[in-house]
Amino acid sequence: MSRIYLDYNATTPIQDAARAAMIAAMDVVGNPSSVHAEGRAAKALVERARAQVATALGADGADVIFTSGATEAAALICAGRGLKGAAVEHDAVLAWVDPVLPVDAQGRVTVDDPAGSVLQLANSETGVVQDLPEGLAVSDMTQAFGKIPVAFNWSGAVAALVSAHKLGGPKGVGALVVKRGTDVAAQLRGGGQEMGRRAGTENIIGIAGFGAAAEAAAHVLSLGIWARVEGLRNLLEQAIEAEAKDTIFVGKATARLPNTTCFATPGWKGETQVMQMDLAGFAISAGSACSSGKLRASPVLRAMGYDDDTARGAIRVSLGPDTSEEDVLRFAEAWLTKQKKFHARPGAGVA
Amino acid sequence: MSRIYLDYNATTPIQDAARAAMIAAMDVVGNPSSVHAEGRAAKALVERARAQVATALGADGADVIFTSGATEAAALICAGRGLKGAAVEHDAVLAWVDPVLPVDAQGRVTVDDPAGSVLQLANSETGVVQDLPEGLAVSDMTQAFGKIPVAFNWSGAVAALVSAHKLGGPKGVGALVVKRGTDVAAQLRGGGQEMGRRAGTENIIGIAGFGAAAEAAAHVLSLGIWARVEGLRNLLEQAIEAEAKDTIFVGKATARLPNTTCFATPGWKGETQVMQMDLAGFAISAGSACSSGKLRASPVLRAMGYDDDTARGAIRVSLGPDTSEEDVLRFAEAWLTKQKKFHARPGAGVA
Repeated sequence: MSRIYLDYNATTPIQDAARAAMIAAMDVVGNPSSVHAEGRAAKALVERARAQVATALGADGADVIFTSGATEAAALICAGRGLKGAAVEHDAVLAWVDPVLPVDAQGRVTVDDPAGSVLQLANSETGVVQDLPEGLAVSDMTQAFGKIPVAFNWSGAVAALVSAHKLGGPKGVGALVVKRGTDVAAQLRGGGQEMGRRAGTENIIGIAGFGAAAEAAAHVLSLGIWARVEGLRNLLEQAIEAEAKDTIFVGKATARLPNTTCFATPGWKGETQVMQMDLAGFAISAGSACSSGKLRASPVLRAMGYDDDTARGAIRVSLGPDTSEEDVLRFAEAWLTKQKKFHARPGAGVA
Repeated sequence: MSRIYLDYNATTPIQDAARAAMIAAMDVVGNPSSVHAEGRAAKALVERARAQVATALGADGADVIFTSGATEAAALICAGRGLKGAAVEHDAVLAWVDPVLPVDAQGRVTVDDPAGSVLQLANSETGVVQDLPEGLAVSDMTQAFGKIPVAFNWSGAVAALVSAHKLGGPKGVGALVVKRGTDVAAQLRGGGQEMGRRAGTENIIGIAGFGAAAEAAAHVLSLGIWARVEGLRNLLEQAIEAEAKDTIFVGKATARLPNTTCFATPGWKGETQVMQMDLAGFAISAGSACSSGKLRASPVLRAMGYDDDTARGAIRVSLGPDTSEEDVLRFAEAWLTKQKKFHARPGAGVA
């Protein structure tokens, strides 16, 4: 029986268009900084991908600065600025912000000073989608880009972080997107690439893959495929809820990404659930992938007011455009079997 | 007539083994930080590449920290340390060091305080190879790795910078290599990847390509192919020298990379030569690729004592393992034709 991958928020399989673009880019020999024909061809490939990402993100006319991922983009735009954020932000953003913004029980964040604040568009663990205030300094759009319609130019944010591997592109490439003319002080210095804002020979294979993946993701979105995914996510939640009535669904009363469900069983550790489901043939996660193995209660759920026992008992199941109804129902069946064993364990106090 | 690429020091074509490894890595779905089977497979791929790079670099037992390239590796190990260097270092290193170390007419650098200094192993523009002193803080081994035998563990350096795209791997991936236990403070923070020294989801396709390219480059080196390349480089210099006796060959009296020649024709701008040769079907460069188009005299040649006119009149021709004798002779012929036209131009004062 083949495995079922339900961890699309951690990372995604490479889309066909991205694969083809990357293989084609392997034949482009030049260094984009070289002035000869080979160099100009490499440069053209980078600029084409830049336009593809800008278009898919609704960021025409904005500056797209390619980086090694959203983590680098976060450091580039956040470090040293004393921005405020909420504890639900990704660790790559939290590393640079003061985590003081209030979070309600549904994961919604209140921003009182947009120009001095960071706010993610969607949370990786819960899928909760935020309303971005006008003039927001930075928004982490990594999880939202490709899954819901996103228009940077209309978002109210001055800067955004995005990543290729969350939408069918390769890992290790992302971008910082800023309104034209925004000051960005280079952290990587030397060759003066990316308009002097990010030195280093460009990852042209990855960048080509990012451009193609962004374009393909926008197409998939336009076809309504994520609405179908949302139906499957809801089906999964109904199947779980019908048999495991004590399950706590996180952020279910607010806007969420169509593919994400986060649910908790107090006392049944998320890590244990992940391992049990892995052995049963399913890839899911507890917390964000980067935090895997850290064995701590999810700071996201703690910020939403859940107690430690509940926060430790949460898992995330995140679907993709290729997920089928059978995948979802098989997961629900396998998870419910384990959940019943958990409740029936010696000492569980079940009558 | 197909074009002839003689700019291997700027960047190299992707080697077959690297291409195959990258295409295979496209099928690895997981995030290396995920604990499930898909994540572990991705992690295994990264660790295999780490071992390949360490072995090829003679760095077994050292820590190999994957980065987005040598530029990032330079920032990671050099920023904020007040290290000394020479003006012949690459811009990505020069950005962080005090350029006070003396350079002689052959490009050799004198280091008086190894523990407080940076010294490249080979220069990208001239190919000049340095003797590294014991206890050197940092060595940029980017240009040397893959072209000459390099053993980090015996080099005397505490840390080294390397890049995949100089040895047949992809652009946008490199590594900082440090003796085990060396303190490296993360600049990219968040997910805690690379033992907490460099956060961000790993560029697994690029890393797989780097590992395979490093292994293949070590094999090519062991076959003596670079000795053949050195013969072609010498043939090229002889062909030029025989007909253009006033040509100045830079660094020719000291140890150089086998594939690199840098030669100057005072008064005939390097940029002009690059453009003329590009139109004639050859890719070469004036200065390092990253500095292309900056239209300044090469700081490397200026540091060696050449006057501005000579430094501006230099080009670099850098050969690769696939370069043929015909490539070299065709280049020499084309260049000499242009060189004669330059000397015969109105007002050149030729008798």
